[in-house]
Amino acid sequence: MKMAELGRRSGIPVATIKFYLREGLLPAGEYRLPNQATYTDEHLRRLTMIRALLEVGGLSIAAAKRVLHAIDSDMPLAETFEVAQQAISETPDPSTLNPAALAIVDDITRGWHMFPENPGRLAAARAIDTFWSIGQEDTHGWFAQYAKAAMFAAEADIDELQARTGRDAQAETVIVGTLLGDALFAALHRAAQEHVTSLRFTTDHNHHEV
Amino acid sequence: MKMAELGRRSGIPVATIKFYLREGLLPAGEYRLPNQATYTDEHLRRLTMIRALLEVGGLSIAAAKRVLHAIDSDMPLAETFEVAQQAISETPDPSTLNPAALAIVDDITRGWHMFPENPGRLAAARAIDTFWSIGQEDTHGWFAQYAKAAMFAAEADIDELQARTGRDAQAETVIVGTLLGDALFAALHRAAQEHVTSLRFTTDHNHHEV
Repeated sequence: MKMAELGRRSGIPVATIKFYLREGLLPAGEYRLPNQATYTDEHLRRLTMIRALLEVGGLSIAAAKRVLHAIDSDMPLAETFEVAQQAISETPDPSTLNPAALAIVDDITRGWHMFPENPGRLAAARAIDTFWSIGQEDTHGWFAQYAKAAMFAAEADIDELQARTGRDAQAETVIVGTLLGDALFAALHRAAQEHVTSLRFTTDHNHHEV
Repeated sequence: MKMAELGRRSGIPVATIKFYLREGLLPAGEYRLPNQATYTDEHLRRLTMIRALLEVGGLSIAAAKRVLHAIDSDMPLAETFEVAQQAISETPDPSTLNPAALAIVDDITRGWHMFPENPGRLAAARAIDTFWSIGQEDTHGWFAQYAKAAMFAAEADIDELQARTGRDAQAETVIVGTLLGDALFAALHRAAQEHVTSLRFTTDHNHHEV
């Protein structure tokens, strides 16, 4: 297809597509005639992923490039996960972390196979430290339950990934799951809080099932 | 204590504290002498909560006021949750949502007691719709597992809340948990993904327990 059709089918303005081409996010089309590049369904698919990274994930152009490179490469999926995690979440500097908070994280994730520099391990320590800094008591048991919920979600992620065939589809699932999984969890968490609160704290019957 | 000591003990600049007073976030001190207000430990505690809302939660002054009002009031805790949820998360306009995505949410949360306008229900539909819009296949089973993980976390939230005594402490737990819970979950989710990926995809033994 020509550029104009790529724009129509993707719903992305041609000027934006040209920007993605210049930035190296979208591979060049094939030139059968001078000044007349043609594009394929692969370009369309890639445009969808670029928008997901930039608009849903809020990634910078540079971070989006690293993620797309990880999808295109034949690096192991475990490494693709690492690239996605690092692009999406800011990794705290370990030297700025409270060692007591880090010790709690290591305790509630005991037995998990991960490198000490895992961005999640460091970010969890920062969240716990913030928790303490705003005057909350130690809530070790609460945190441990969150670790169980997180492991449950991670098992679901990898089940889903293994249901896909082909490295490209699997790598895309890794990226999309990392981008959208937390938003979905946070939303369902709000809904679940209303359910549990309603069951335990209210005696009226105004709450109803939807 | 005097304003200067309140600043010293809270670590918050006096100019900022005065701003919070003017905005009605911090209650006025008691005037024993003209122009000489005194503040209590309650003011110190409130300052910690104000910072959590503005800095950790990224709330606007207006949203922080609504949350503080919910803490101070004697509204039922279920309502306090609602105020916190609405202040923290943007609620999508239901008319902009894909009915098919909303149907999936209602299916995976079947039996949950919640109002149709629960912000989490609507935000989950938006996340699922975005998922589809970036070309992902239907992944009903994956979403259903996330609903289970979210319910697990919500049960932990309310267990923790019920372990606190006094309505103020409980209301604060509601707010802080809502502010920080998702950040903690997201971080632990990253860590758990490394663990599961490492177990299922790599055969080397370079990963080690921390």
